[in-house]
Amino acid sequence: MSVQECIFCKIIAGQIPCTKIYENEHVLAFLDIGPISEGHTLLVHKRHTDSVAETTPEILCQIAEVLPALAKAVKNAMDADGYNVLCNNGAAAGQVVNHLHFHIIPRNNDDGIFNRWPSFEYPQGRADEILQKIVQNLEN
Amino acid sequence: MSVQECIFCKIIAGQIPCTKIYENEHVLAFLDIGPISEGHTLLVHKRHTDSVAETTPEILCQIAEVLPALAKAVKNAMDADGYNVLCNNGAAAGQVVNHLHFHIIPRNNDDGIFNRWPSFEYPQGRADEILQKIVQNLEN
Repeated sequence: MSVQECIFCKIIAGQIPCTKIYENEHVLAFLDIGPISEGHTLLVHKRHTDSVAETTPEILCQIAEVLPALAKAVKNAMDADGYNVLCNNGAAAGQVVNHLHFHIIPRNNDDGIFNRWPSFEYPQGRADEILQKIVQNLEN
Repeated sequence: MSVQECIFCKIIAGQIPCTKIYENEHVLAFLDIGPISEGHTLLVHKRHTDSVAETTPEILCQIAEVLPALAKAVKNAMDADGYNVLCNNGAAAGQVVNHLHFHIIPRNNDDGIFNRWPSFEYPQGRADEILQKIVQNLEN
C-alpha cells in the first residue's frame, strides 16, 4: 500500500474523520474504529513509517513523549484494571494498516481478550544459538 | 513486589543470570526465559518503573533509542514474517513481572500464537461518550 492510499495518512490529513483524542505537531491519538475493548486507542506518528524496525528512534521518542499520559488517561477513563500497549509489525503479527501504530487496549480481570500465552522452554543449547544469531544481526 | 525483590532488577544487577543480547547505560535486552516464539526478547530499562502510565517519557525514549535496531535484528535473526512489540501493564493485561518491559515476539504466518482479535463496533453515541471521558482524564 502506498502512502497515498494509507488510511491513517488520510485520517492525519483530515480526509477521513476520526474520534480524535489528542493531537500535537508530531502525533495523533484516536479511538480505534474496530475496538477490542471499550476505549481502545491508537497512537500514530504523522510521518508515515511502516514498522518499528523501519522507523527511527526520533519518531518513537515523539510517540514516547505522549504515551505515559495517554495510557494513564485511557486507563483511568475506562476504570480499567490494566492495559496492553501493542504494536503489530507485519501481516503475520496482525498489522492491518501499514502505518506504524500503537494500540492502547484497556483490560479488565478475566476479560478473556487475549487468553493465550503459549510459553515453552528452550531445549539445552538452543537459547545460545539464538543469542548468537541475534547478536550477529545487531552488529551488522 | 518491592524493587528489592524485582527479578528484572536482580538480572540488571547481575545477581540472576540472563541470556544477554544487548546492554548500554540505560537499557538491557535479553531472551525471555519462557518464550512464546523462538527469539522472544525482552527490552527493559535499568531504572525500575512499573508501567507505561507510571514511567516517564525520558525512560521510554531511552528504550526507543534501541528498539528499531533490536526489533530488526530479532526479526532478521529468526527469519520471521513479522513481530509484535508488546508491553503488558497490570496483571489483568498479563504483566507478570512488575518492572516495565517490552516484549519483541517474532511471528510467522499462521503460527496461531495470538489468534484472537475480538473487535466490535460501538453503538451510536458510545464512542463520543468514551472520547469525553478520556479527554477529561488527559486534561486533569
